[in-house]
Amino acid sequence: MDPDTVAKAFVEHYYKTFDSNRAALVGLYQDGSMLTFEGSKIQGAQAIAAKLTSLPFDQCAHAISTVDCQPSGPQGGMIVFVSGQLQLAGEQHPLKFSQMFHLMPTPQGSFYVQNDIFRLNYA
Amino acid sequence: MDPDTVAKAFVEHYYKTFDSNRAALVGLYQDGSMLTFEGSKIQGAQAIAAKLTSLPFDQCAHAISTVDCQPSGPQGGMIVFVSGQLQLAGEQHPLKFSQMFHLMPTPQGSFYVQNDIFRLNYA
Repeated sequence: MDPDTVAKAFVEHYYKTFDSNRAALVGLYQDGSMLTFEGSKIQGAQAIAAKLTSLPFDQCAHAISTVDCQPSGPQGGMIVFVSGQLQLAGEQHPLKFSQMFHLMPTPQGSFYVQNDIFRLNYA
Repeated sequence: MDPDTVAKAFVEHYYKTFDSNRAALVGLYQDGSMLTFEGSKIQGAQAIAAKLTSLPFDQCAHAISTVDCQPSGPQGGMIVFVSGQLQLAGEQHPLKFSQMFHLMPTPQGSFYVQNDIFRLNYA
Protein backbone atom coordinates (compact mmCIF):
# COMPACT_ATOMS: atom_id res chain seq x y z
CA MET A 1 0.00 0.00 0.00
CA ASP A 2 1.25 3.47 -0.73
CA PRO A 3 1.90 5.75 2.27
CA ASP A 4 -1.07 8.05 1.60
CA THR A 5 -3.43 5.08 1.66
CA VAL A 6 -1.90 3.80 4.91
CA ALA A 7 -2.14 7.27 6.46
CA LYS A 8 -5.80 7.67 5.52
CA ALA A 9 -6.64 4.20 6.80
CA PHE A 10 -4.88 4.93 10.09
CA VAL A 11 -6.63 8.27 10.53
CA GLU A 12 -10.06 6.77 9.85
CA HIS A 13 -9.38 3.93 12.27
CA TYR A 14 -8.04 6.30 14.95
CA TYR A 15 -11.00 8.70 15.00
CA LYS A 16 -13.58 5.95 14.59
CA THR A 17 -12.09 4.29 17.69
CA PHE A 18 -11.90 7.64 19.51
CA ASP A 19 -15.57 8.34 18.83
CA SER A 20 -16.89 4.86 19.63
CA ASN A 21 -14.56 3.23 22.20
CA ARG A 22 -11.93 5.70 23.39
CA ALA A 23 -10.30 3.31 25.88
CA ALA A 24 -9.32 1.01 22.99
CA LEU A 25 -6.89 3.67 21.72
CA VAL A 26 -4.42 2.28 24.29
CA GLY A 27 -3.54 -0.42 21.76
CA LEU A 28 -2.19 2.16 19.30
CA TYR A 29 0.46 3.51 21.72
CA GLN A 30 3.51 1.97 23.41
CA ASP A 31 5.45 2.74 26.61
CA GLY A 32 7.69 5.26 24.84
CA SER A 33 4.82 7.02 23.08
CA MET A 34 4.29 10.72 23.72
CA LEU A 35 1.15 12.83 23.58
CA THR A 36 1.03 16.61 23.84
CA PHE A 37 -2.63 17.56 24.21
CA GLU A 38 -3.30 21.30 24.21
CA GLY A 39 0.19 21.81 25.65
CA SER A 40 -0.11 19.10 28.30
CA LYS A 41 2.60 16.40 27.99
CA ILE A 42 1.85 12.74 28.69
CA GLN A 43 4.08 9.69 28.11
CA GLY A 44 3.25 5.99 27.87
CA ALA A 45 0.27 4.08 26.50
CA GLN A 46 -1.55 3.74 29.82
CA ALA A 47 -1.15 7.40 30.79
CA ILE A 48 -2.18 8.54 27.31
CA ALA A 49 -5.29 6.35 27.34
CA ALA A 50 -6.12 7.66 30.84
CA LYS A 51 -5.82 11.25 29.56
CA LEU A 52 -7.97 10.62 26.48
CA THR A 53 -10.71 8.80 28.41
CA SER A 54 -10.80 11.53 31.07
CA LEU A 55 -11.41 14.41 28.64
CA PRO A 56 -14.45 16.35 29.82
CA PHE A 57 -16.90 15.12 27.19
CA ASP A 58 -18.53 11.78 26.65
CA GLN A 59 -19.78 11.72 23.10
CA CYS A 60 -17.92 13.27 20.20
CA ALA A 61 -17.59 12.94 16.44
CA HIS A 62 -14.48 13.81 14.44
CA ALA A 63 -14.81 14.94 10.82
CA ILE A 64 -11.55 14.87 8.86
CA SER A 65 -10.82 17.76 6.48
CA THR A 66 -7.25 17.04 5.28
CA VAL A 67 -4.66 14.27 5.72
CA ASP A 68 -1.03 14.88 4.72
CA CYS A 69 1.67 12.23 5.01
CA GLN A 70 5.45 11.98 4.63
CA PRO A 71 8.03 9.27 5.43
CA SER A 72 9.97 10.38 8.53
CA GLY A 73 13.32 8.70 7.86
CA PRO A 74 15.16 5.45 7.22
CA GLN A 75 13.47 3.56 10.07
CA GLY A 76 10.19 3.26 8.19
CA GLY A 77 8.28 5.86 10.18
CA MET A 78 5.55 8.04 8.79
CA ILE A 79 4.36 11.51 9.74
CA VAL A 80 0.63 12.11 9.39
CA PHE A 81 -0.82 15.59 9.68
CA VAL A 82 -4.58 15.98 10.10
CA SER A 83 -6.97 18.91 10.15
CA GLY A 84 -10.61 18.52 10.98
CA GLN A 85 -13.58 19.35 13.13
CA LEU A 86 -14.66 17.92 16.46
CA GLN A 87 -18.34 17.94 17.31
CA LEU A 88 -19.11 17.52 21.00
CA ALA A 89 -22.54 16.30 22.13
CA GLY A 90 -24.71 19.21 23.22
CA GLU A 91 -22.53 21.87 21.57
CA GLN A 92 -23.93 23.91 18.70
CA HIS A 93 -20.70 24.46 16.77
CA PRO A 94 -17.87 22.02 16.02
CA LEU A 95 -14.31 22.82 17.19
CA LYS A 96 -11.59 22.98 14.57
CA PHE A 97 -8.42 21.04 15.35
CA SER A 98 -5.02 20.08 13.96
CA GLN A 99 -3.21 16.89 14.99
CA MET A 100 0.07 15.28 14.09
CA PHE A 101 0.96 11.60 14.43
CA HIS A 102 4.40 10.06 14.02
CA LEU A 103 3.80 6.40 13.25
CA MET A 104 6.52 3.79 13.62
CA PRO A 105 6.36 0.24 12.22
CA THR A 106 5.87 -2.73 14.51
CA PRO A 107 7.51 -6.13 13.90
CA GLN A 108 4.02 -7.41 13.00
CA GLY A 109 3.85 -5.11 9.97
CA SER A 110 1.52 -2.62 11.59
CA PHE A 111 2.18 0.83 13.07
CA TYR A 112 2.07 2.37 16.54
CA VAL A 113 1.93 6.04 17.50
CA GLN A 114 5.34 7.27 18.67
CA ASN A 115 4.40 10.98 18.73
CA ASP A 116 0.99 12.65 18.94
CA ILE A 117 0.41 16.40 19.16
CA PHE A 118 -3.10 17.85 19.31
CA ARG A 119 -4.22 21.47 19.19
CA LEU A 120 -7.58 23.12 18.87
CA ASN A 121 -7.61 25.95 16.31
CA TYR A 122 -9.39 28.75 18.07
CA ALA A 123 -11.25 31.15 15.82
CA MET B 1 19.57 23.57 25.92
CA ASP B 2 16.33 21.81 26.60
CA PRO B 3 14.24 20.72 23.58
CA ASP B 4 11.49 23.31 24.13
CA THR B 5 14.06 26.11 24.07
CA VAL B 6 15.64 24.73 20.91
CA ALA B 7 12.22 24.39 19.28
CA LYS B 8 11.21 27.96 20.12
CA ALA B 9 14.54 29.32 18.88
CA PHE B 10 14.19 27.39 15.63
CA VAL B 11 10.62 28.58 15.08
CA GLU B 12 11.53 32.22 15.72
CA HIS B 13 14.50 31.95 13.36
CA TYR B 14 12.45 30.20 10.67
CA TYR B 15 9.62 32.73 10.51
CA LYS B 16 11.92 35.74 10.90
CA THR B 17 13.86 34.46 7.89
CA PHE B 18 10.61 33.70 6.00
CA ASP B 19 9.34 37.23 6.57
CA SER B 20 12.61 39.08 5.81
CA ASN B 21 14.63 36.97 3.32
CA ARG B 22 12.62 33.96 2.17
CA ALA B 23 15.31 32.68 -0.24
CA ALA B 24 17.66 32.13 2.72
CA LEU B 25 15.38 29.33 3.98
CA VAL B 26 17.19 27.06 1.50
CA GLY B 27 19.93 26.68 4.12
CA LEU B 28 17.55 24.98 6.54
CA TYR B 29 16.70 22.11 4.16
CA GLN B 30 18.74 19.30 2.57
CA ASP B 31 18.36 17.19 -0.59
CA GLY B 32 16.19 14.62 1.18
CA SER B 33 13.95 17.21 2.82
CA MET B 34 10.22 17.14 2.10
CA LEU B 35 7.63 19.91 2.12
CA THR B 36 3.89 19.44 1.79
CA PHE B 37 2.40 22.89 1.32
CA GLU B 38 -1.40 22.97 1.22
CA GLY B 39 -1.33 19.41 -0.14
CA SER B 40 1.38 20.08 -2.75
CA LYS B 41 4.45 17.83 -2.32
CA ILE B 42 7.97 19.14 -2.96
CA GLN B 43 11.31 17.42 -2.28
CA GLY B 44 14.83 18.83 -1.97
CA ALA B 45 16.23 22.11 -0.63
CA GLN B 46 16.35 23.89 -3.99
CA ALA B 47 12.83 22.90 -5.03
CA ILE B 48 11.44 23.79 -1.59
CA ALA B 49 13.10 27.22 -1.65
CA ALA B 50 11.77 27.77 -5.18
CA LYS B 51 8.27 26.92 -3.99
CA LEU B 52 8.47 29.21 -0.96
CA THR B 53 9.88 32.16 -2.90
CA SER B 54 7.23 31.77 -5.62
CA LEU B 55 4.24 31.96 -3.28
CA PRO B 56 1.86 34.64 -4.55
CA PHE B 57 2.62 37.30 -1.96
CA ASP B 58 5.67 39.46 -1.40
CA GLN B 59 5.44 40.75 2.13
CA CYS B 60 4.14 38.74 5.04
CA ALA B 61 4.42 38.54 8.81
CA HIS B 62 4.00 35.38 10.87
CA ALA B 63 2.75 35.61 14.45
CA ILE B 64 3.28 32.44 16.49
CA SER B 65 0.48 31.30 18.83
CA THR B 66 1.73 27.92 20.12
CA VAL B 67 4.88 25.79 19.81
CA ASP B 68 4.83 22.13 20.88
CA CYS B 69 7.87 19.88 20.72
CA GLN B 70 8.70 16.18 21.18
CA PRO B 71 11.80 14.05 20.49
CA SER B 72 11.09 11.90 17.43
CA GLY B 73 13.26 8.89 18.21
CA PRO B 74 16.75 7.57 18.97
CA GLN B 75 18.41 9.48 16.10
CA GLY B 76 18.14 12.81 17.92
CA GLY B 77 15.36 14.26 15.82
CA MET B 78 12.71 16.63 17.10
CA ILE B 79 9.12 17.23 16.07
CA VAL B 80 7.93 20.83 16.30
CA PHE B 81 4.26 21.70 15.91
CA VAL B 82 3.30 25.35 15.40
CA SER B 83 0.04 27.25 15.23
CA GLY B 84 -0.13 30.89 14.33
CA GLN B 85 -1.37 33.65 12.09
CA LEU B 86 -0.03 34.86 8.76
CA GLN B 87 -0.62 38.49 7.81
CA LEU B 88 -0.23 39.24 4.11
CA ALA B 89 0.46 42.77 2.92
CA GLY B 90 -2.72 44.44 1.71
CA GLU B 91 -5.04 41.90 3.37
CA GLN B 92 -7.35 43.01 6.14
CA HIS B 93 -7.44 39.79 8.15
CA PRO B 94 -4.61 37.40 9.03
CA LEU B 95 -4.80 33.75 7.94
CA LYS B 96 -4.59 31.07 10.63
CA PHE B 97 -2.16 28.24 9.96
CA SER B 98 -0.72 25.05 11.45
CA GLN B 99 2.73 23.76 10.52
CA MET B 100 4.82 20.78 11.54
CA PHE B 101 8.61 20.48 11.29
CA HIS B 102 10.64 17.32 11.81
CA LEU B 103 14.16 18.53 12.63
CA MET B 104 17.18 16.24 12.39
CA PRO B 105 20.61 16.99 13.85
CA THR B 106 23.55 17.90 11.61
CA PRO B 107 27.15 16.83 12.34
CA GLN B 108 27.83 20.49 13.19
CA GLY B 109 25.46 20.35 16.15
CA SER B 110 22.66 22.25 14.43
CA PHE B 111 19.41 21.00 12.89
CA TYR B 112 17.95 20.80 9.40
CA VAL B 113 14.32 20.34 8.35
CA GLN B 114 13.67 16.76 7.25
CA ASN B 115 9.86 17.10 7.09
CA ASP B 116 7.69 20.19 6.76
CA ILE B 117 3.89 20.16 6.45
CA PHE B 118 1.92 23.41 6.20
CA ARG B 119 -1.84 23.94 6.21
CA LEU B 120 -4.02 27.02 6.42
CA ASN B 121 -6.86 26.65 8.92
CA TYR B 122 -9.86 27.93 7.07
CA ALA B 123 -12.58 29.49 9.21
